[in-house]
Amino acid sequence: MMEQPYADLDTSARILLGPGPSTVHPRVLRAMAHPLVGHLDPQFIALMNEVQELLRTVFQTENALTIPVSGTGSASMEASLCNFVEPGDPVLIGVNGYFGERLCDMAGRYGAEVRRVERDWGEVFSPEDFETALVQKPAKLVALVHAETSTGALQPMAGIAEVVHRHGGLLVMDCVTSLGGVEVAVDAWGVDVAYSGTQKCLSCPPGLGPLTVSPRAREVLHGRGTKVANWYLDLTMVEKYWGGERTYHHTAPISMNYALREALRLVVEEGLEARFQRHRANAEMLWAGLEEMGLEPCVGLEHRLPSLTTVWVPEGVNEAAIRQQLLSEYNVEIAGGLGAYKGRAWRIGLMGYSSRRENVLLLLSALKALLG
Amino acid sequence: MMEQPYADLDTSARILLGPGPSTVHPRVLRAMAHPLVGHLDPQFIALMNEVQELLRTVFQTENALTIPVSGTGSASMEASLCNFVEPGDPVLIGVNGYFGERLCDMAGRYGAEVRRVERDWGEVFSPEDFETALVQKPAKLVALVHAETSTGALQPMAGIAEVVHRHGGLLVMDCVTSLGGVEVAVDAWGVDVAYSGTQKCLSCPPGLGPLTVSPRAREVLHGRGTKVANWYLDLTMVEKYWGGERTYHHTAPISMNYALREALRLVVEEGLEARFQRHRANAEMLWAGLEEMGLEPCVGLEHRLPSLTTVWVPEGVNEAAIRQQLLSEYNVEIAGGLGAYKGRAWRIGLMGYSSRRENVLLLLSALKALLG
Repeated sequence: MMEQPYADLDTSARILLGPGPSTVHPRVLRAMAHPLVGHLDPQFIALMNEVQELLRTVFQTENALTIPVSGTGSASMEASLCNFVEPGDPVLIGVNGYFGERLCDMAGRYGAEVRRVERDWGEVFSPEDFETALVQKPAKLVALVHAETSTGALQPMAGIAEVVHRHGGLLVMDCVTSLGGVEVAVDAWGVDVAYSGTQKCLSCPPGLGPLTVSPRAREVLHGRGTKVANWYLDLTMVEKYWGGERTYHHTAPISMNYALREALRLVVEEGLEARFQRHRANAEMLWAGLEEMGLEPCVGLEHRLPSLTTVWVPEGVNEAAIRQQLLSEYNVEIAGGLGAYKGRAWRIGLMGYSSRRENVLLLLSALKALLG
Repeated sequence: MMEQPYADLDTSARILLGPGPSTVHPRVLRAMAHPLVGHLDPQFIALMNEVQELLRTVFQTENALTIPVSGTGSASMEASLCNFVEPGDPVLIGVNGYFGERLCDMAGRYGAEVRRVERDWGEVFSPEDFETALVQKPAKLVALVHAETSTGALQPMAGIAEVVHRHGGLLVMDCVTSLGGVEVAVDAWGVDVAYSGTQKCLSCPPGLGPLTVSPRAREVLHGRGTKVANWYLDLTMVEKYWGGERTYHHTAPISMNYALREALRLVVEEGLEARFQRHRANAEMLWAGLEEMGLEPCVGLEHRLPSLTTVWVPEGVNEAAIRQQLLSEYNVEIAGGLGAYKGRAWRIGLMGYSSRRENVLLLLSALKALLG
């Protein structure tokens, strides 16, 4: 037996108020430590069915094809494009932040003819923005971000699916930072494909990407003329493992599915409406406190996202140094800006189990102490 | 608060002797339950470095680009192809089982011109098999499976890289079912890209795919004329998060990395050589017991894989019923055959923490009781 050069795992007790991961509920941590059964064990199959049911509840959908993709939110994002796009397909993407840019990058890799509808960072789209673009030229698929984690803007969804469907397209929605913390009503909104991550408002460790696919989108999937250009994320195969056939595709991440089930149980126990109200109330407490300190949110109140707040860094303040002090002196993590907001904004997440009055109070007090 | 319709997580205490997941060591389970830090936290960055070092030890390589891909072994398999293949590239794949077939399917999706070198299921390749094929036509990339999980055959690696390199190709090796249980010597064997999964001989839950890339393969990656046709697995971006830049790409699965670090610590504590010997000794005990019962292994002793044994189902025996009884009466999981072996063979894994004398004895006794 060799001498052990690597120490026991021993990290600081961080309070995670960045854009994810959020703090994981102790019950979910315990589920992670549960001994494994096999990925084709009848007990795991039963658990998969429960995870699917619970995901449908949280997505507010009846879509049969509702599953956790075996990768992070970025993988479910890619699954939402690569399964429905074939080379040469026209795709229209709303870009008003970092994740809209990523959608363009991904869609381009699958040979889509990508067009953009653009808004400044922090702004949102109107249905007319898409109408104008689609009148010029229809798109097979229109994608936009519901909760832009880079800007802190919340996209109103009313009227958008109607426009997209009238022009014959599928609507794809990123709800990575909204699912489980802010209303996401997939069926009522007419969304065809919605994807998320586990480590935001669901407060489960990162590693799975919840995904839901409407019957209409599933027809497009089954009507493809070419194989999906991504084996791991190919839903024509993945649906056979999660569906009645249970055909082996890849080994499901067992423990992560244990964790997601527990995280979703917690959502259902609290109730969706109560959960949204908690996220909203704690966000409002944060906003009031920030404004009292003279800190200005990047997004106007009307479209401000409760789960993730962006706030401008005051002139003359070294934003990275403040974050560093928050971490080392108070064990509190917040994040800096991405892309156009880099060096100019902080990003504060109040997501899932992290959305707590005591966390808001601590962060405000710590910021006050550090900003003097 | 809603009434909870979903019961507490409560699965049977399975003894996992299938092709993976194997039984997870209690220390690894505890690591999974460790509270999370952020994915850009200095403490997580330090842990990432340790995971990379430990992976290099286990792969027996000095390759700087040695990481866990944020998906299961199938994702690291896909990463091993999509990063090095561009449309029209000639690729040569050794097919003597299910996973060789999968390599062909995957490579084809990235536009490779796929040629096959074939051997019957259960057989292995000689360097001359590749020599003959490469003399006919060179290949940019040659891929083969070191430990075929579908057949239980162990591919000898001596001389193969020499042939592939002489013809100007990169050698890609699947070591999903060997890494950590059977010798895998990436540098000594001249392998350019090797990939694995966590849930086999490393006895970590499924969800990460260890991958190592030689400097030569990395040059090919950096010399691409086209973007990698897979965003999530694009190593030109992933290497910037795992390398010095720490540029955000996707959120790393924090808890899975905690688990992998602990699983790799256990490997290093035991020592690679001792671990290989343990796998070999327990496999030999299994083989002797099976033969004593008149059960015939599918693969001859010379190329038989210690971590996964395939054995023919005796005539007149319902193989699925026996597996079902093993599971329900003894909590022991083994697997049926895949592809050409479907319905004809059992697959018995003795991998990582599952490779234990008591497990061998239990399985043999239970099989004896059930087969009468």
